[in-house]
Amino acid sequence: MNMPATDQGWITHAIVLAEKGWYTTTPNPRVGCVIVKDGTIVGEGAHLKAGQPHAEIYALQAAGDRARGATAYVTLEPCSHTGRTGPCAQALIDAGVARVVIGMTDPNPKVSGRGIAMLEAAGIAVETDVAKAECEMLNPGFIKRMITGAPRITLKMAASLDGRTALANGASQWITSDVARADVHRFRAESCAVLSSAESVIVDKAQMNVRPEQFGMTAADFGSPETDNGMRQPDRVILDGRCRLTGEEPIFNHPESLVLVLPPDAEPPIQGVRTLHLDYGVTGFDLTSLLAALGQCEYNDVWVETGAALAGAFVSEQLVDRMVVYMAPKLMGHHSRGMLGLPMMTKMDDVLQLEWQSIDTIGPDLRLIAKFSK
Amino acid sequence: MNMPATDQGWITHAIVLAEKGWYTTTPNPRVGCVIVKDGTIVGEGAHLKAGQPHAEIYALQAAGDRARGATAYVTLEPCSHTGRTGPCAQALIDAGVARVVIGMTDPNPKVSGRGIAMLEAAGIAVETDVAKAECEMLNPGFIKRMITGAPRITLKMAASLDGRTALANGASQWITSDVARADVHRFRAESCAVLSSAESVIVDKAQMNVRPEQFGMTAADFGSPETDNGMRQPDRVILDGRCRLTGEEPIFNHPESLVLVLPPDAEPPIQGVRTLHLDYGVTGFDLTSLLAALGQCEYNDVWVETGAALAGAFVSEQLVDRMVVYMAPKLMGHHSRGMLGLPMMTKMDDVLQLEWQSIDTIGPDLRLIAKFSK
Repeated sequence: MNMPATDQGWITHAIVLAEKGWYTTTPNPRVGCVIVKDGTIVGEGAHLKAGQPHAEIYALQAAGDRARGATAYVTLEPCSHTGRTGPCAQALIDAGVARVVIGMTDPNPKVSGRGIAMLEAAGIAVETDVAKAECEMLNPGFIKRMITGAPRITLKMAASLDGRTALANGASQWITSDVARADVHRFRAESCAVLSSAESVIVDKAQMNVRPEQFGMTAADFGSPETDNGMRQPDRVILDGRCRLTGEEPIFNHPESLVLVLPPDAEPPIQGVRTLHLDYGVTGFDLTSLLAALGQCEYNDVWVETGAALAGAFVSEQLVDRMVVYMAPKLMGHHSRGMLGLPMMTKMDDVLQLEWQSIDTIGPDLRLIAKFSK
Repeated sequence: MNMPATDQGWITHAIVLAEKGWYTTTPNPRVGCVIVKDGTIVGEGAHLKAGQPHAEIYALQAAGDRARGATAYVTLEPCSHTGRTGPCAQALIDAGVARVVIGMTDPNPKVSGRGIAMLEAAGIAVETDVAKAECEMLNPGFIKRMITGAPRITLKMAASLDGRTALANGASQWITSDVARADVHRFRAESCAVLSSAESVIVDKAQMNVRPEQFGMTAADFGSPETDNGMRQPDRVILDGRCRLTGEEPIFNHPESLVLVLPPDAEPPIQGVRTLHLDYGVTGFDLTSLLAALGQCEYNDVWVETGAALAGAFVSEQLVDRMVVYMAPKLMGHHSRGMLGLPMMTKMDDVLQLEWQSIDTIGPDLRLIAKFSK
């Protein structure tokens, strides 16, 4: 393999390896590892799925005896704890690796630095944070959850140029193009969970799952590894504070990936569906409690598709990390439904401020990604 | 000068020359001309201002005797009529030019082809439409007016990501950034007229003129030629169907570039202001008649800045050629004012369809230019 034989170059290669797990590592982080000896790769690996080996283990297995005296490049600090697999730091020590170059330290404040300390105690030279910004982009949701306990929240909307999401009578199929809607399914596929409301599930008959076949695509287009028996589906978390769901809605076609958020003591309409029970008051569920509960479900990334009222509540409570807006070059006029229900504002300083992260055309539509300015 | 010595290369150079008149040729078209002999430019020129010589005359003056046997490249068919200057086709003949290469034929159906016929009758070899699409981009407003009698209408809006133009109480200063508002002034400067309503002029105290100094710029930044005594200002056309203007509003600071659209027999509030008188009914002025009147004023490009009601009327009557939307990464919520008042729509097929022409970031904001799909 021909590449610049610098630490930065090898870490970049490890990042590319980590991306193999883009759609599948949940709830674990995406990690890649490459082991280099005398300027040559002697082993590489990526973490693909919880319960399967970590990236370092795959790379060490491939390297075998050649790991002795080699340098290991890994995108995230090797773990020091014995989880489903043994601690990766110990495995690197046992293999006789001479040097470890780390993209970023572990974001979990409870364990951050422990893997490094274990390596250094064994006499291994360690450099860390050599590609911090790049490696953070592999795991923004995981990092947020490790630090705050809550998942990263992405609010998706589809709107016309004049900011309307449906006609006055509710008609909205479809504002955006097939290719934009396929892009939504890709974002669902990379999320740990899709969150919506009973209203959307009842009125729009939404299923909120990933259906590559609907867009002439295959599971592989949405990152399902070839070894999988079918593709990983994100959980669908549906808020049903008034217990309106009957169990007949299309979303119940796949109860195994369904989670209903219900008031205390409420029973799900059918058996075998997971539930989260949260207090439900006149203003709905407490969304901060909801996010904490979703964090406890080990969701790193939650993709929210819902109506103007719930979307507006998430936004005005400052619980949204970024918005993904698919904007069609269409005009629907002032009678049509608006994007967000927000409290009345009386001065321009009250206006909520974001900044663009990316601006792309997706077929005939725009995809605008904006994050909230903190 | 080093450039590919092809017809296409010389016409491209003539287009660059034509752009010198971008802000100033109104009501005439932007035209550039280059005269080439033995692979070398012997003369070039651009039309800069109505009443001054056409591009061909400047180029022939510069070439002198060297025009004999040369090839003239001109972005628009040379005129055959004696207007403020003599016919350019005759001047090319008199100068002994051997060949004329034309970017596009004259768009005015009444005279199109006459200049070419005059040249060919004199034994000159003529090729035309060699860069039709590129040369059309020099004069979209002029071309539309020559064909339809009406100016090109560009509707400008400034909105938040959720499609809101002001808070419920009317506050809107400022949704977009300084740099976006400077960009608006550039568009005003290249327009023949800016159109607005008495409402905007009264409530927002809008002046609708070009004020480079407000943005730390000079007249030259907005294309005012150095020879000008001050910069050209677009006319400001203000619709005042209910005769609400008192003459005290800031827009009357420069009455020389002001045109009031009034009902029949209505008097302007101050003397010395130009007026257009049109029937005014319960739905306001008839906008098709208005556009015809603006065409008779010889406006090629009219830039419309107004509120949701009038903007919506222009849009729903299909009188808008393109929209320029400055979109700030802000959220203002459902209580805030919408972009466009349009008739109620009951099915998605009713939704108005556009397509993006350009998508740019302007400072922290987006500038989205979309044209209506016919």
